[in-house]
Amino acid sequence: MTNVSQTIEQVAGFRVAGVAAGLKASGAEDMSLIVSDRPCAAAAVFTTNLMKAAPVLLDMERMAESAGDIRAVTVNTRCANACTGEQGLANAREMSRLTADALGISESSVLVMSTGVIGTHLQMDKIAHGINLAVNALGDDWAAAARGIMTTDTRPKSASARIETPEGVITIAGITKGSGMIAPNMATMLGVIVTDAVLTPAQASDALKAANDISFNRIVVDGDMSTNDTVILLANGASGIAVHPNHARQFDEAFRAVALSLAMAIVRDGEGATKFISLEVTGAADDASAKVIANTIATSPLVKTAFYGGDANWGRIVAAAGRANVPFDPDAVTLTMAAGLAPGAEDSLLLFENGMPTAYNEATATEIVKASEVTVTLAVGSGPGSAIVYTCDLSHDYVSINGSYRS
Amino acid sequence: MTNVSQTIEQVAGFRVAGVAAGLKASGAEDMSLIVSDRPCAAAAVFTTNLMKAAPVLLDMERMAESAGDIRAVTVNTRCANACTGEQGLANAREMSRLTADALGISESSVLVMSTGVIGTHLQMDKIAHGINLAVNALGDDWAAAARGIMTTDTRPKSASARIETPEGVITIAGITKGSGMIAPNMATMLGVIVTDAVLTPAQASDALKAANDISFNRIVVDGDMSTNDTVILLANGASGIAVHPNHARQFDEAFRAVALSLAMAIVRDGEGATKFISLEVTGAADDASAKVIANTIATSPLVKTAFYGGDANWGRIVAAAGRANVPFDPDAVTLTMAAGLAPGAEDSLLLFENGMPTAYNEATATEIVKASEVTVTLAVGSGPGSAIVYTCDLSHDYVSINGSYRS
Repeated sequence: MTNVSQTIEQVAGFRVAGVAAGLKASGAEDMSLIVSDRPCAAAAVFTTNLMKAAPVLLDMERMAESAGDIRAVTVNTRCANACTGEQGLANAREMSRLTADALGISESSVLVMSTGVIGTHLQMDKIAHGINLAVNALGDDWAAAARGIMTTDTRPKSASARIETPEGVITIAGITKGSGMIAPNMATMLGVIVTDAVLTPAQASDALKAANDISFNRIVVDGDMSTNDTVILLANGASGIAVHPNHARQFDEAFRAVALSLAMAIVRDGEGATKFISLEVTGAADDASAKVIANTIATSPLVKTAFYGGDANWGRIVAAAGRANVPFDPDAVTLTMAAGLAPGAEDSLLLFENGMPTAYNEATATEIVKASEVTVTLAVGSGPGSAIVYTCDLSHDYVSINGSYRS
Repeated sequence: MTNVSQTIEQVAGFRVAGVAAGLKASGAEDMSLIVSDRPCAAAAVFTTNLMKAAPVLLDMERMAESAGDIRAVTVNTRCANACTGEQGLANAREMSRLTADALGISESSVLVMSTGVIGTHLQMDKIAHGINLAVNALGDDWAAAARGIMTTDTRPKSASARIETPEGVITIAGITKGSGMIAPNMATMLGVIVTDAVLTPAQASDALKAANDISFNRIVVDGDMSTNDTVILLANGASGIAVHPNHARQFDEAFRAVALSLAMAIVRDGEGATKFISLEVTGAADDASAKVIANTIATSPLVKTAFYGGDANWGRIVAAAGRANVPFDPDAVTLTMAAGLAPGAEDSLLLFENGMPTAYNEATATEIVKASEVTVTLAVGSGPGSAIVYTCDLSHDYVSINGSYRS
């Protein structure tokens, strides 16, 4: 069991900064920079949205060319640099060039990320100013770096874990930002995870993909998927410790734990969220089918508003499952709910069993859905497929936040 | 051009009632009955949700056996009789038997519909009481019948049209209820459309399917799909006028106009809706692709909240299109918006052209999205496929209504 901290002390060979470049009217940090003192093996996962933002297109190009030689990631908020055509791509390149020049490194070793409003151009004078500020502020202030990538997030999100090996300590650490537009597919967010372990690009890619699949790919806020979603892993090898068979399992476990902690932090801070819901679908024909059903439930506005209202309207969960376009036997459907995460079987309330409502106690059901953390388990048969997704409720505040995002 | 009225005077050979059976605590009408004085050619379209409610299962069975011999439809609110297993099916049968007995007709000629909370059983004493009240109240009060099927609807929905033929007048009339759980596929609502035309069951089926495809299948409130969705067409032939080639086009046009009027009324009365949005996707590879893109945009919470907030955040529309899993060229995407429905080209504002934002006037864009009716046109290429869907915004009231539906 990995011990994950919500803060980051230091990761060997990495320096970071979060600065206020004047993009946010509030004067808060709005740009971040993560720099390694040596080339990193890098891996990245990107949005599958067809309308990929300029920084995503640039990073995809860079990753194809120099995944073994990445040195820095520059991030800006307030502008997604998406749907911006050729000028957008030129601006993304300029952002990487300015970073490279200020750091005295090669432009091809810089990745960029943008988040914010779609369809507007970067204010390049402020971006240039922010890069200079950030380069001068480089240090160990990971909290500032986590703040510098926030958009509608109400709090910064970071996580770290230390792995003790016979050769010494490896550190894994990451920062992310959410918090709306979180879809079931791919990490609909920005994230940077770093480690001082020695990884090959292939090891980095495998580790990120495996962790992504059980973390950022399992979280749902509103079902929308952004143009900018990117998670980057940088492994700089500063610990001098390679991940070899002796502790590969330990490393993978810690890596997944950090990614899951970051992903769950995004859901907990989902726009307007008042509740964290862990939803497991079991008994499906296969895992993929189970995931489709789980995602359909997790994106249902009716399910999400019922949780917000503290209404144990479990029929909406079953009805959402029924429209997932995944075949199952309605008479084999069983639903339980429990307050809290990872509850014992004795704490679970059976609401619907083999297609029939049970004679459950309504007050008990209401008590469960009024809890701040709820575990829902839906069995749709006796097949081997299962999937867990994490989601939140849909509140008045979600509507307020997104009805006035640009203003 | 068919002249559609929002009220229903009378349809030859049909009598209706809407009564208060005590299901709604408010004392409002909560059950409705539609009866023909002679056998009808009937057609029906049902939810594609796997968790079909008992009345849907019963009606599917009846339609398979006696589509040419239907006499009555009984509707109750407050309880969907869904996820209720064998007892639910027995209750649906009993509801049809009670109706048949009170009317002195065959049980197999009665269809039933239920709408309301999922997972609870019908209160059969009140249902029996309501059926007796309704049979005694039968007449031409279509407004009461429209009220008797309402759930969270804020107003009753009805429409009618008269078709003048050389042989006399044919009437088409319908009532529906929405207003949440309106999904892109199939009419997520209840509806009964009647006509005194002489139709064969095959003609009735063709007419309903064609009209359904351009009306109830084109409306989106929240993307959820209920367990109970049903639209029934009853053609009793009381006018003595058959629909023959001479006026088939006129009949089809009127039928589609009535269905579209009812469908648009559902969107206008969408839960918490403050805005009506007509969304057309053009230039897709085919109509089906265009519809998938349009439905993805119409169900996007980010798009819907931006419209609610009067924020011309068009990037969310393009971003939603990009995650529809339909291939198109991002550099061929063009977006225009206009206030009102069916605006002229000169009233349309070009926001995004061939993958690049235009130098549009922000104040003009804001004025458009603040209108109560907005037309959005998204071209995704130069293909022949297009689709129109109708949707509404996502408001604070939607959350309020659905956070406390059962209470």
